[in-house]
Amino acid sequence: MTRSIDLNADAGESYGAWIMGDDAALFSLLSSVNVACGFHAGDPLTMQRTLVLAGQHHLGIGAHPSYPDLPGFGRRILEAAPDQVYADTLYQISALAGMAGAAGLDLQHVKAHGALSTRAWTHAPTAQAIAQATRDFNPALPLLVLPATELEHQARALGVPVVLETFPERAYLSDGRLAPRSMPGSSIHDPAEAARRAVMMATEGRIEAIDGGYFAFTQNSPFEVDSLCIHGDNPNAVQIARAVREALAAAGVEVRSFVQPRLS
Amino acid sequence: MTRSIDLNADAGESYGAWIMGDDAALFSLLSSVNVACGFHAGDPLTMQRTLVLAGQHHLGIGAHPSYPDLPGFGRRILEAAPDQVYADTLYQISALAGMAGAAGLDLQHVKAHGALSTRAWTHAPTAQAIAQATRDFNPALPLLVLPATELEHQARALGVPVVLETFPERAYLSDGRLAPRSMPGSSIHDPAEAARRAVMMATEGRIEAIDGGYFAFTQNSPFEVDSLCIHGDNPNAVQIARAVREALAAAGVEVRSFVQPRLS
Amino acid sequence: MTRSIDLNADAGESYGAWIMGDDAALFSLLSSVNVACGFHAGDPLTMQRTLVLAGQHHLGIGAHPSYPDLPGFGRRILEAAPDQVYADTLYQISALAGMAGAAGLDLQHVKAHGALSTRAWTHAPTAQAIAQATRDFNPALPLLVLPATELEHQARALGVPVVLETFPERAYLSDGRLAPRSMPGSSIHDPAEAARRAVMMATEGRIEAIDGGYFAFTQNSPFEVDSLCIHGDNPNAVQIARAVREALAAAGVEVRSFVQPRLS
Amino acid sequence: MTRSIDLNADAGESYGAWIMGDDAALFSLLSSVNVACGFHAGDPLTMQRTLVLAGQHHLGIGAHPSYPDLPGFGRRILEAAPDQVYADTLYQISALAGMAGAAGLDLQHVKAHGALSTRAWTHAPTAQAIAQATRDFNPALPLLVLPATELEHQARALGVPVVLETFPERAYLSDGRLAPRSMPGSSIHDPAEAARRAVMMATEGRIEAIDGGYFAFTQNSPFEVDSLCIHGDNPNAVQIARAVREALAAAGVEVRSFVQPRLS
Repeated sequence: MTRSIDLNADAGESYGAWIMGDDAALFSLLSSVNVACGFHAGDPLTMQRTLVLAGQHHLGIGAHPSYPDLPGFGRRILEAAPDQVYADTLYQISALAGMAGAAGLDLQHVKAHGALSTRAWTHAPTAQAIAQATRDFNPALPLLVLPATELEHQARALGVPVVLETFPERAYLSDGRLAPRSMPGSSIHDPAEAARRAVMMATEGRIEAIDGGYFAFTQNSPFEVDSLCIHGDNPNAVQIARAVREALAAAGVEVRSFVQPRLS
Repeated sequence: MTRSIDLNADAGESYGAWIMGDDAALFSLLSSVNVACGFHAGDPLTMQRTLVLAGQHHLGIGAHPSYPDLPGFGRRILEAAPDQVYADTLYQISALAGMAGAAGLDLQHVKAHGALSTRAWTHAPTAQAIAQATRDFNPALPLLVLPATELEHQARALGVPVVLETFPERAYLSDGRLAPRSMPGSSIHDPAEAARRAVMMATEGRIEAIDGGYFAFTQNSPFEVDSLCIHGDNPNAVQIARAVREALAAAGVEVRSFVQPRLS
Repeated sequence: MTRSIDLNADAGESYGAWIMGDDAALFSLLSSVNVACGFHAGDPLTMQRTLVLAGQHHLGIGAHPSYPDLPGFGRRILEAAPDQVYADTLYQISALAGMAGAAGLDLQHVKAHGALSTRAWTHAPTAQAIAQATRDFNPALPLLVLPATELEHQARALGVPVVLETFPERAYLSDGRLAPRSMPGSSIHDPAEAARRAVMMATEGRIEAIDGGYFAFTQNSPFEVDSLCIHGDNPNAVQIARAVREALAAAGVEVRSFVQPRLS
Repeated sequence: MTRSIDLNADAGESYGAWIMGDDAALFSLLSSVNVACGFHAGDPLTMQRTLVLAGQHHLGIGAHPSYPDLPGFGRRILEAAPDQVYADTLYQISALAGMAGAAGLDLQHVKAHGALSTRAWTHAPTAQAIAQATRDFNPALPLLVLPATELEHQARALGVPVVLETFPERAYLSDGRLAPRSMPGSSIHDPAEAARRAVMMATEGRIEAIDGGYFAFTQNSPFEVDSLCIHGDNPNAVQIARAVREALAAAGVEVRSFVQPRLS
């Protein structure tokens, strides 16, 4: 049996006249994309073009909802009430899914963007609002989550299918949290090192922690990491994605979008 | 056989802390609503609450897409390119339809708002973009149109089901255009007069023109007006809707949402 | 010597077609206004009209900068970086001051709005950024501050003139913080009680605390409260302002805008 | 006596995380910049950084107000009412001027951006609103105008100092209008040709028209072009600016910001 894993990146993060990243170059290396829905990036025309391009590359398509924060690119925590997070998330999923449908494409997953995601790692009401919006849109729609977070917990509690995601370019603490960006070594810039970590994540389900020891992404199995995330807004994103992809192939791991999301 | 007609109004036009109109009072008098989708009014939480309220009143639900113009309430022509109009319209329809679905409701129709609608009456590329977005979202979804406009023409050309709409509170020119708001008598403020006009529209399919004679809304039949529109942002909208409703009842015309939209 | 005090309220919080509060009715009862600058409310045309109206009532004019958050009316904490808060605040002060100047009016003060203000009560970098922006715009421009907050502290540290403000409609804790809105009794709705509290604040410089005892707004003097704030978005704001004004007059306290701001 | 001319470009057109153009490279070749004010580009922090950079290069600083249209980059005509254009323009000038002042810099001029400018070339109420806002902010503040437009006419009628601007990279019609972008040859991409045209504009005050003959920018004198504009968002903007600058130097024309704007 061949081990496979999903390789995802954020996409469609241009806005009007402003270009972000090089989606066309990156898409040939991925199996899934998280498409901005207009709240942190991605005006409707950009969304449509991104969907068409993703369809041409046969990528799994994810909605990438955010706090409403164009000037901050959705990277700033906004203390929105849970009913606001619910409605904002549902609005964005719906908008992207409808546009995908008009282009003949299905929505594969939902992944929270930036500060909305960060807040959902520890703030239960925010996590629950995201999971509830995902379920109310479509109970079979999986949510990409960072393992061992409040978001994973709330999604499972609501019966939302979860897809476990890890970051080959980011250092982890031994309790599973991402090392803060202010910590030296928190970001991995070397494509070869990112690729080595991707392979360990995919084949062992764990990674060395920056503060010693290992973090195992799941308690039960070394093979439960479902998706690896590449940061598309990095200047060297294409180079990293290529290195990761080649290393996975060399390790006998196929890159393909998840089909059977993990049920709770 | 009982004659019936739809009675619609714009709704959900509050935004965050700002309240517009009295949806709760108006909804008991209508059969359909056009719900703002966030571009001229209607933040996601307002949309959700409007949908729930509309569902409680068993109203037909319409998406009410607009140019992106919160400070102008969508009432200012924006010379957006057709592909921008297409994407903006599709985005808004999708967002509302998905939120409706999450609340257990179906989308009944699409109606362009304000300046987007006005521009589509005469500007073929804009009209076509709106009709195409509606069709690409769902080919069975009807578009509310002002009769004898480019929007009606383009919708029919694309096979989009059309619902013919008239305005009891607005004066018409003999060629079918709405009398400009700058013209004396262009707006009808007297509920009794609006009600009288509503009955004539519903039962005769025509109305007296402000510049003499009559305008017949369709060439073929006196009974083809499908929907009457009340302006929900009028201070006396509730009073007018009640007068229209009572006059229609007295004339033997039932108010109910359209079920069988007119196919092209 | 007659004791005097400023009576301020937030104003200009309409946005495009949406109306908030009744500025015209309230302005005749105030001595100062805090004018929204476009980030939580107040499009440019609303700002201009508010300034003209304020000028007609000879009110002291304040800039009321906010986080950029129209859908949340600036009431949601946004974890903006200090350099973003600085630039956003300076932008808004500048915009309002320039518009005031074009209308022949001077800017009297700056007051942070909603969540920006709340965050600045306890978060030193945010408080410092607001104070620095105020000083860099004009070193003589006073900042309205809640006494005993980080905002007061940072303003004094930078040499920004401070004006001490209290809320007759809000309950206080014995340590000087406003009682959380979730606490029963945190908001005073009775105009007579608000008026009684206003007089005590103005003449004794202290108020009964909701958790027992009194809070004295300054350590040195019973007369150092400079301004009382009425919430203009309350339905009964006009009634409260009138009661406060009459009670102050009966107590021999003149309502007038501050002229000599308290130097640090 | 040495002939001199101003060389300006739009700048500060990044927005949050999105970068537009290469201001740092271009600034060393210019004498003036038109700084985006937040309505089409340029969040407050970008504005502040742009101002600091412009100050380091000793550039003349202009406010570059736009229609409120981030997704369209201000390039789409918006049928805003004159009082809206007035207030929007005054707001943006004020915001930039205040931020400039806080950085120790003066505002040199105002230049309308994109579709706001285009509309003001032919629509008198829009042109008048822009000119009036400029004058009400500061009667001595010059407005950069395309010669022979309604904007020049209205500015002169109101006594606003005007600075005549031409575009070395754009073809002209014999009546002075810019050749529409849809016309072949309407844009000049060759740096050498742009440079040749810049020299002719600066030294002869006229240019060959794309439809035959010449267009003279002013009737009275061959030397009245005050400023040449380079499009900073062109990929080869730096190359063109360098070619223009070198050709002007070779022709004995000094590049420097205008000091004595042309009074009406």
